This record gives sequence, C-alpha cells and structure tokens, in this order.
Amino acid sequence: MRQEELKQFIADIEPLNLEVAKQMETYLDGLTKPVGSLGKLEQLMIQLAGVQGTMDIKTKPCATVIMCSDNGVCDQGVSSCPQEVTATVTYNFTRGITGVNKLSQFAGSDIHIVDIGVKADFKHPLIHNRKIAYGTQDMSIQSAMTYEQAMEAIEVGIEETNKLIENGYEIFGTGEMGIGNTTTSAAITAALLKLDVEEVTGKGSGAKDQVFNSKINAIKKAFQVNQPDPNDPIDVLAKVGGYDLAGLVGVYLAAAHGKKVVVIDGFIAAAAALVAYKLCPTVKDYMVASHLSKEVGMQKLLMEIGLEPHLNLEMRLGEGSGCPILFNLIEMAKYTLLGMGTFEDAGVDKSNYMHIWK
Amino acid sequence: MRQEELKQFIADIEPLNLEVAKQMETYLDGLTKPVGSLGKLEQLMIQLAGVQGTMDIKTKPCATVIMCSDNGVCDQGVSSCPQEVTATVTYNFTRGITGVNKLSQFAGSDIHIVDIGVKADFKHPLIHNRKIAYGTQDMSIQSAMTYEQAMEAIEVGIEETNKLIENGYEIFGTGEMGIGNTTTSAAITAALLKLDVEEVTGKGSGAKDQVFNSKINAIKKAFQVNQPDPNDPIDVLAKVGGYDLAGLVGVYLAAAHGKKVVVIDGFIAAAAALVAYKLCPTVKDYMVASHLSKEVGMQKLLMEIGLEPHLNLEMRLGEGSGCPILFNLIEMAKYTLLGMGTFEDAGVDKSNYMHIWK
Repeated sequence: MRQEELKQFIADIEPLNLEVAKQMETYLDGLTKPVGSLGKLEQLMIQLAGVQGTMDIKTKPCATVIMCSDNGVCDQGVSSCPQEVTATVTYNFTRGITGVNKLSQFAGSDIHIVDIGVKADFKHPLIHNRKIAYGTQDMSIQSAMTYEQAMEAIEVGIEETNKLIENGYEIFGTGEMGIGNTTTSAAITAALLKLDVEEVTGKGSGAKDQVFNSKINAIKKAFQVNQPDPNDPIDVLAKVGGYDLAGLVGVYLAAAHGKKVVVIDGFIAAAAALVAYKLCPTVKDYMVASHLSKEVGMQKLLMEIGLEPHLNLEMRLGEGSGCPILFNLIEMAKYTLLGMGTFEDAGVDKSNYMHIWK
Repeated sequence: MRQEELKQFIADIEPLNLEVAKQMETYLDGLTKPVGSLGKLEQLMIQLAGVQGTMDIKTKPCATVIMCSDNGVCDQGVSSCPQEVTATVTYNFTRGITGVNKLSQFAGSDIHIVDIGVKADFKHPLIHNRKIAYGTQDMSIQSAMTYEQAMEAIEVGIEETNKLIENGYEIFGTGEMGIGNTTTSAAITAALLKLDVEEVTGKGSGAKDQVFNSKINAIKKAFQVNQPDPNDPIDVLAKVGGYDLAGLVGVYLAAAHGKKVVVIDGFIAAAAALVAYKLCPTVKDYMVASHLSKEVGMQKLLMEIGLEPHLNLEMRLGEGSGCPILFNLIEMAKYTLLGMGTFEDAGVDKSNYMHIWK
C-alpha cells in the first residue's frame, strides 16, 4: 500500500452518526430505570447505534481477527518461552482447544487466523497465509521491518477485515499470537507516549527478573539504534513493532472505515490501537476496550486513547481472549435494553420524577 | 430467631474445602496457557470447587434473591423518588420488564422476589410474602427496627435461601428494591467502618444536592438518636438499616451455610455483605463481588471484606442487576476452562517451559 492510498483510506473514515446515537439515548431514557443507571451497558448501545447509523443494531456475526507473527528480538532473550510456541499455538487455534477458542464458542463468535509473519509454514484452510516474512528482524540491531513492510502489514489487516465485512461481520475483535510481542508493544508504548521504558514494560506471560531485564535492555538498544520518530506512528511501528501489531492497526482502520465496532483485547492489541488512533483519532469512536490486562502499560494506553475497560479480570493470555467476553456482554446489553419495559409499561409516571428519572 | 440459634447457625458455617480448591488449581495449571493467565476466570473455578467440595462444579440453576422493603427514613426527603415506587417496581419484577428480569433471562437465571417490608400488599404467586412490617420506622427519630425485628428479617433471608437450596439452586445473587436504601446502606457503612458519613454517601439513583444533603443529615441524626454500636453488627442493622438489608444478611449466611457461592450486586448488597462478614468472616470465602457500582461507599465496602469486583460498568440500578452478568461470566469461565486443551493436547512440552508455564 502506498502512503497516499493509506492517507485517502484514513480520510474516508467518518465520525459516528451522532443523530442516531442521540436517538438511542432518548430511547434508553424512556425505559423503566433511573436514567443512565445501566451505565456502560447503555453506552455500548449508544455507541453501536452511532457506529452503525441505525437503531436496528446488529451484533452478530462477530469475529476476533488473530494476527500471528514472530519477532526477531526474541534473540535477545526477551521471553522465557521458545519462539516455536508461536507456530504451535497458531496451529492450535485451528483445533478449537485454546482459550480464545472456547471463549468464542461460548459467545457464539468466530475467529479469523492470519499468518502475517510466523517463522513456520502452515497448510491449513483456517490459517490465512498473508506472510510478509518469517518474523521480523531483531530490532535491537536494526529496524524490525522496513517502512514498506509495515505498510504492507497494515494493508493485510485492512484487506482481511474488508473481506470479513463483505461476508457480513458486524463486530470485530483484535487478537494476536507472537512470542516476544509484549516487548514490541512496550517499545511502541514508550516511544509514542514518550515514557520511560521501565514504566511500560511488564512481565508478559510470565517473565522472571532476568528476562524482564533483557526486555528493557533490548528496547533501549532498539531506541538507540533506530531512533524511532514519535511523530510518525508508522516509523515507530516499523522500527520497533511487529507484523502482528501492524496487521492489527489495519484491522482498526478498516473496521472504522466500514462503520463497525472493534473491540480491543489486551496490552498488545491496545498498543496497536494507539498506533491506529495516532494515525486517525476518529477511529476511537469505533473502539471498545474489553478488559484491563495485568500488563503495566495497558492503563496508560487506554487513558491516552480515552477509553475505559469494562472488565477487570487480571487476564494476561492475549490471543484476543477479552474480545468474546465483551461480545457476550454486548449481546446481553442488547437483549436487556432493547427488551426492557418503558415507563408507560411500568406504570411509573415519568413526569412526576423527572428530577430523578431524567 | 433467637440469638443463640443464629450463633449456632453461624458456628456451623465451614471454610472452603482447600484440598479440592488446590486440585482445581492444579488442573487449571495443566491447560495450554501460561499459568494463571486467565486471571479471575480461574479464580472463580477454584473458588467454586472449594465451595462445592467437588471438581464437578455445578453452575445452574442460579437465582437472584430480591429483598423488597420500604424505609421510614424516606420521610426525611432522602430520595427524589416517591416511596410508592418500591411497590410498583416490586410488582414489575413479576412482569419480566425490569432490568434484572431481562439480564436474568439472558443469563438463564431466576429471580426470587421477597416482600419483607413493602408498604403495600401484593397478591401474586411470584412475590413471596414474608412481610415483617409496612416499612421501617424513621431512623432519624427512632430505631429503624427493633433488635427482634432485625433478627426476624435475617431469619427470613435464611429460610428463603434454604428453600431455594432444597430446590436445587447452586449459586445465589443478592438483589433489593427499596426507595431510600442507599441512605440506610451508607449509614451501615459509616457505622461499621467508622467513617465520616460524607465519605460513604452517594447520590443514589439520581439525587440532586438538596436530597444529598438530606441523606447526610438524616444519617447524622440517626447516629445521634440511636448510637449504633459498631461492635454489634445486628445493633447497627436494627437501628440504621432496613428489612431488605437484614434479609440479605440472611441470604449470605444461608448460602455459606449450604456451601453455595453468593454473588454481591451493588452498594446495598455490599453493605449487607459487610454485616454478614462482621458476623462471620468465613462467609467471605463464599462471596463473589460482581461489579463496582457508581456509589462512593462501594469500593470501601469491598476493600474491607477483601473482595475485588470483576466488572466495571458504572451501573447504579440495584435490583440485583450485577448478579446475572456475573452468573453468565461464571458460566463462560466454566465452559472455557473445563473445555480447553491440556499441554499434552496442545503439543507443548510443559517441562521445557516450567519457568513460564508454571
């Protein structure tokens, strides 16, 4: 994808339909409950109405797009986990046995697995081969990707999401699998938010002190070698990011472009969300934060974008695991708020209690 | 209920079966994910196993017990809402049109409506008539209840819950309906935690400044007139509480006594949970906090008991509305964690990665 094409794609992203959002709010205010008392459940309905531009909200089908990729920085010992686990778990997504599989089955949502840079070859109809390279370069030595590769990865995310939109998908989730990607996500967070590396680097899935120190050192080296430009999100993404993150940036942009809500999973998905937000702040209107993960940088990312998590489950699995939980919550909110009685049904005279009910 | 009977009932409450809880933890550690990475979803399974004393966890059927009652302190203008709304909404629970109705329908859970002190008469098979009085006395003038009435209300909660346990219910939720009950809950919180009234009093469902000041004044007067003894939770409950709260205390005690998990809804349910916890700290092992409500005292209550909410939805509806959302989350956790693949299934050699996977 050329830069001008991406610019045009971003320019075509429209803000919410505020009129329909307001219409939904007015409808919810007529339900038999104190105004706003179902809190974020109501906000989800208002957002969905504004995003979809209709009161006839669609919540199904929904899919978590899982970008799978390897990271060259693993050579620096930034994970306790062998790099091969990326390929193993990517394959296991097809077998229905991972966390995100079971959560999605419960929620009645789908997963869409994309090999955007795994250091292994798959031949499985459920793994979409969009491989740009067999993993990134080691960012502590050179740029993780070229600028062109990063653009290409964003394009993959856009194309895969557009295909799903064409197939009727209404809500998206963002998942990833890539050993080492809490390191790249911490690097992106530190670079774009201009924070100390220590402030945004966590223990990942289970790093001990030595690994934790390696993460911090690798990121510091990567900054020294590459000098990522905080004013150019794609430069940061290319130099210290990964294909998985870049692919997810494309998912966010395409969802917003296609007027679909897109749910953020954990720290890595949130780092990609920040890049998308920096490229196009309007994308925020389409984003929903699912949970507050245990990674230290997570809260800072959501605060910068201006989003609040709905769940506080101390999860740190990745895979997009928070998304089906939020899909389910959206479904519950819809069932409840579009099914509840109005003041008239309830026999409560709203006009007498305007000070409380409105 | 005589005091000795309650003492014996409490003495019979047993702690969790730690052996089975540990067995569940070990099982979860063998699943194909970094150890503990599904956070509180795992903790819910461990707690359920410990509570039920078996790996064969039962999550259905579940019921939210809704204690409905009026509060004499409404004479002091502590709510913007007319007292009659208590009766109207209590009746509407039978019609399936309220928030907790729809949420429960989605979750596949039941509600159990108890009239423990509404200032109106019902003749409906779904409203269980356990009325102790037509509302409490005005606590700012005299004791809200006698000590005997508070004991009787606790007994009602115990009996209703025991009936449901006999009928096979596996998990309980705590709901309430009673105009004025954020005032009684704030009073109980301030008294038992020895905090300033201002620190724990919120705006309820939608109080404006004048009403907010009336709440604070009424509680301060109630403390002056009644001098509740913070070392005697039932004295506090009787003097500045309500029948709904006392009934919920009975629900918590009976659930723990019957080895059932009991979910706390919002601020009012949490105030009752604190009374139960003060009477019997072991009850905490059986409690699950659902969401962090918007009421200011909520966080303080949960911190005192030592519980963390799973959801942050800025809800302030009451009715037990947080409980079905948590029932649904428990169901999702069970489906996921008892359905996921093990390391063996996943083709990941756990022994090589003990430092991360364990």
